[in-house]
Amino acid sequence: MIKNISSLSNPTIKRILQLQEKSRQRKKEGVFVVEGIREVELATKGGYDVTDLFFCSELFPSEKLEGLISNTSEKPEITEISADVYNKIAYRGSTEGLLAIIRNRDLSLKNLQLKNKNPLILVAEAPEKPGNIGALLRTADAAAIDAVLIANPKTDLFNPNIIRSSVGCVFTNDIATGTTSEIIAFLQEKQINIYAAALQASKSYTLIDFTAASAIVVGTEATGLSKEWLQSSTQNIVIPMQGEIDSMNVSVAAGILIFEAKRQRGF
Amino acid sequence: MIKNISSLSNPTIKRILQLQEKSRQRKKEGVFVVEGIREVELATKGGYDVTDLFFCSELFPSEKLEGLISNTSEKPEITEISADVYNKIAYRGSTEGLLAIIRNRDLSLKNLQLKNKNPLILVAEAPEKPGNIGALLRTADAAAIDAVLIANPKTDLFNPNIIRSSVGCVFTNDIATGTTSEIIAFLQEKQINIYAAALQASKSYTLIDFTAASAIVVGTEATGLSKEWLQSSTQNIVIPMQGEIDSMNVSVAAGILIFEAKRQRGF
Repeated sequence: MIKNISSLSNPTIKRILQLQEKSRQRKKEGVFVVEGIREVELATKGGYDVTDLFFCSELFPSEKLEGLISNTSEKPEITEISADVYNKIAYRGSTEGLLAIIRNRDLSLKNLQLKNKNPLILVAEAPEKPGNIGALLRTADAAAIDAVLIANPKTDLFNPNIIRSSVGCVFTNDIATGTTSEIIAFLQEKQINIYAAALQASKSYTLIDFTAASAIVVGTEATGLSKEWLQSSTQNIVIPMQGEIDSMNVSVAAGILIFEAKRQRGF
Repeated sequence: MIKNISSLSNPTIKRILQLQEKSRQRKKEGVFVVEGIREVELATKGGYDVTDLFFCSELFPSEKLEGLISNTSEKPEITEISADVYNKIAYRGSTEGLLAIIRNRDLSLKNLQLKNKNPLILVAEAPEKPGNIGALLRTADAAAIDAVLIANPKTDLFNPNIIRSSVGCVFTNDIATGTTSEIIAFLQEKQINIYAAALQASKSYTLIDFTAASAIVVGTEATGLSKEWLQSSTQNIVIPMQGEIDSMNVSVAAGILIFEAKRQRGF
């Protein structure tokens, strides 16, 4: 049975707005909001549980609902919402007419299963800007790397801006979070080489053999990696720069390092 | 002599706001606004003419002014502005206390001088997002490539968001703009190989010899490159992707291609 909401003061609508805006609310309820057809599809394909679906029939053809929910382990509650209500809760310019409430996943390191014996891993320490995190996740997806580890996360990954800027790649990657110490211990225990990117390193990334088990570690643009990483690494590496200012976007730098590893591995 | 402005209704302040917000105003007056110490320094170092400098003495030490203007060909008019006024016209969170009005440069292709006989060039067709353009310019600076060509520009490069997101690299690169046809003719005339990045290309970028004169051409994420580029290229190239969705940020893709060329050229 499909419910109907056409009032902006409906408590469910208020709940959605709260979940979108407040990390604390997402944590408290253990759910988050996803918008867009591809994004919801990737979440269900990635095994995330959809608890509620909201569609605006003027934008989203209701016959598509069946396909969407066929992948979910439990049947979500389905609600039709009016165009007015949709426009209030959807991202500006969004015209897909679909939102979902999805259950959080425990991203602890202990849940991470590495299938590849010779993994290629990306570690990002304390990334802040949703746009950069999204770009990192898109690159990680494109390279089909084995895991993305977020050390000392500054923001929850189910922040709507990250989901959006990752175009859903937050659901296609194997992601785990932990403190820097936990992640270093995890990598060392699994004998994965740690390559920490640093402006002041002397060894060029092109001289590294990335065909062995490797973790590429990047820090923030403002402060770089913490000492803990630079001191625990197998090798600190640099992307040689020859410009007026030594400055590159962190997701561009990560892309260059990851795809050098992919090139060496023969894709 | 240093002027003083402490009123928000001062016509000069209104002019600055207009120049920041309106591309049309920048075009009409032939000037644009730059904010931040590094950015203004890079602009003067890059040979741009500063017509006016505005500083807020509570944030910017006036004794630094001398060093800043020593590079400029003509003496700019200098105005001290109050903190209130500065906060109105400065970017949120900006604390450097310095703004400049700078004269536009003619970015026509005819003014571009390639010093290197074997150049490495980046071409971006119709890039739209200031964040992506900024990241492209930062990568181009880091790689010290010979020129950045913007084909069919959608936005003027002296847009404050581009200056900011490029952290001033809009002034450190040799940049020219033109139509796609003009740029193709320019590259062909100079016998520069054209490598057009396309998702549907069959040749991996790692199989290209970038040590010869090369232009790496990228399109927008939404529509890719126009047919004109794909049909005029020496070779269309692809970054092999193995993820769930074939999607990478355009500035990340450009970074991967540029640094593969740099690797082959031995930096």
